[in-house]
Amino acid sequence: MWDDWIADAAATREGAGLTRTLKPRGPDDGVIDLAGNDYLGLSGHPDVRRAAAEAAMLWGGGAGASRLVTGTLTLHGDLEEELADWLGQPGALTFSTGYHANLSIVSALADRTAHVVSDAHIHASLIDAVRLSRAQLTVVPHNDVAAVRAALAAQPGVRTLVLAESVYSVLGDEAPLTELAEVCAEHGALLVVDEAHGVGVHGPGLVHRRGLAGRPDVLVTATLSKSLGSQGGAVLGPRSVLDHLVNTARPFIFDTGLAPAATAAALAAAQIARSHPHLADIIRFRVIGLARTLGVPAPAGAVLSVPMPSPEGAVAAQAALLTEGVRVGCFRPPSVPDGVSRLRVTAGASVTDEEWDRAAKVIETIVGEVR
Amino acid sequence: MWDDWIADAAATREGAGLTRTLKPRGPDDGVIDLAGNDYLGLSGHPDVRRAAAEAAMLWGGGAGASRLVTGTLTLHGDLEEELADWLGQPGALTFSTGYHANLSIVSALADRTAHVVSDAHIHASLIDAVRLSRAQLTVVPHNDVAAVRAALAAQPGVRTLVLAESVYSVLGDEAPLTELAEVCAEHGALLVVDEAHGVGVHGPGLVHRRGLAGRPDVLVTATLSKSLGSQGGAVLGPRSVLDHLVNTARPFIFDTGLAPAATAAALAAAQIARSHPHLADIIRFRVIGLARTLGVPAPAGAVLSVPMPSPEGAVAAQAALLTEGVRVGCFRPPSVPDGVSRLRVTAGASVTDEEWDRAAKVIETIVGEVR
Repeated sequence: MWDDWIADAAATREGAGLTRTLKPRGPDDGVIDLAGNDYLGLSGHPDVRRAAAEAAMLWGGGAGASRLVTGTLTLHGDLEEELADWLGQPGALTFSTGYHANLSIVSALADRTAHVVSDAHIHASLIDAVRLSRAQLTVVPHNDVAAVRAALAAQPGVRTLVLAESVYSVLGDEAPLTELAEVCAEHGALLVVDEAHGVGVHGPGLVHRRGLAGRPDVLVTATLSKSLGSQGGAVLGPRSVLDHLVNTARPFIFDTGLAPAATAAALAAAQIARSHPHLADIIRFRVIGLARTLGVPAPAGAVLSVPMPSPEGAVAAQAALLTEGVRVGCFRPPSVPDGVSRLRVTAGASVTDEEWDRAAKVIETIVGEVR
Repeated sequence: MWDDWIADAAATREGAGLTRTLKPRGPDDGVIDLAGNDYLGLSGHPDVRRAAAEAAMLWGGGAGASRLVTGTLTLHGDLEEELADWLGQPGALTFSTGYHANLSIVSALADRTAHVVSDAHIHASLIDAVRLSRAQLTVVPHNDVAAVRAALAAQPGVRTLVLAESVYSVLGDEAPLTELAEVCAEHGALLVVDEAHGVGVHGPGLVHRRGLAGRPDVLVTATLSKSLGSQGGAVLGPRSVLDHLVNTARPFIFDTGLAPAATAAALAAAQIARSHPHLADIIRFRVIGLARTLGVPAPAGAVLSVPMPSPEGAVAAQAALLTEGVRVGCFRPPSVPDGVSRLRVTAGASVTDEEWDRAAKVIETIVGEVR
């Protein structure tokens, strides 16, 4: 019964050309890597490496327990203070992954009696979070503030969370944060903004840039594994909300604390990102230049999405780029909200100017051939 | 609306004496720590610290992307091979946390058309996993094989997962794995065994010890953050199941790969655990001795649960022990399946014989006073 079901699922994937396999990479294979999410290039920064190594030597390999038992390290407090200070928030709480930050904030605040209004393009972790919460869900069209307003107006007096990302992963576009915050305030709703692709790429993030940081009705989640070059996630907001998570969020309570090395790496990366704002400028410069060359819209974040005629075409272009020494990502169903396959090019600060220029030329040529 | 709701929840907790707060600890505060889950004492082992530090220096702070993009490192492959070899399984797949290993295996295999039969005492992550899967759920009484058989017989022909832990967290008792595997085989069900508290404490785990390792209908999940002193989790089983997870498990696909330092720490710890079986013997010796002294049943794992008259009594005993330089954990509702508050004493190999003897004496005295 199980064997047949698993084999059928594999055959269906294979038939659709959608089988995925893991391709291990070494620490440095000489390829220009424009596929990852290390937007500021901080994962490999000497100070980040050293901070992680020193923390591992001082604290050991793991936090040793869940945060509420003995897995809360003073190091976690250092990171949480730095993040809160940087992002202009009253407090922060770290998690072992950004996925858990999202699962926690939604499932701890929303329950069967609550209502969640979610943008159609939000990340898988937020979708799973809503499912866990058992709240009533209204999905609104992407970046449609009027639809959010209508969803809130339709259920006055119901505790409602509105879910958005500051920069969306696949299309790379920005949420209308100011308008969303306004609509939420009008209706007494809480706005939860996932800044996974915003923090670092936009300094302290777009919630901060739009003047919304520190508002008690605008909560932020962030990941430590993209611009901060490490692993983990965080929720930022009022102390009362963080205390609520500490006491009720199951993916926080029943999980081991973030490992010392990852905590220290994220802390060092945050300090570097704050003190080196030009890293974010490099991203803007590169992303705008390449978008112009390829004739695609410049994204709000660091990732350029280049639509391809088919999943197979996307995979072929990706392979051709790799033979030229350039690694890019590839979005295929079901990881795209609209079914369109895309190349995914990270115009981050993790490569040198020379590498970037060479890669941009190769991308221009091969994308021109495929499209 | 939200402010009131959050404040009410806080007041209710406070009224019930169940408010939890985080207590940060330093890298070494001179306290004898019997509260964590570092069962074999490997988190602080010199080889584990060094492996983590070297990996951070070589690879950087993070894996840089999700596993299917460029976040699969050859280091992940090394760890997965070691774990599979040790536990006698065809393959392994690592996750950023054990929570995600459990979320993934259940939500990728079970859906609305599946049936999940779960022991009443399983971990929060497996409960959340079932909720995510939307499968039909039957909760059976703890360790009741007849109830599992009845649940399976009631729905012949339905794809069914049976969920158990090899060693249960709170009561510390063992699952009847042989009988469960037999019942599952009779009915074509898959048995999923969470070995979070079994691997390391029982060498390659109880699935292996009971001769069930490598059976295609017995899947194993494990954590890297307890006996392996690091962070992360793993699923072990047939290649076809792991491929299915790679292609369909959202908490795997949409999460950044496990950080290099954590991966290397777990790998080093696994190698030490395999080559130093006496570490597990220390646990058995200590756990049996203390259980006898306190007049409580010896657990199957490394954690001794000592029932207390009330949540307040448990907290008071825990505080008294800390003033004597001994840190133990404390189980209170809602983290206990039966509502009974307990002291939680890890009789692990992370402290010296002298420290253990001193701690055991202090525990005997203070527990005697409270009960």
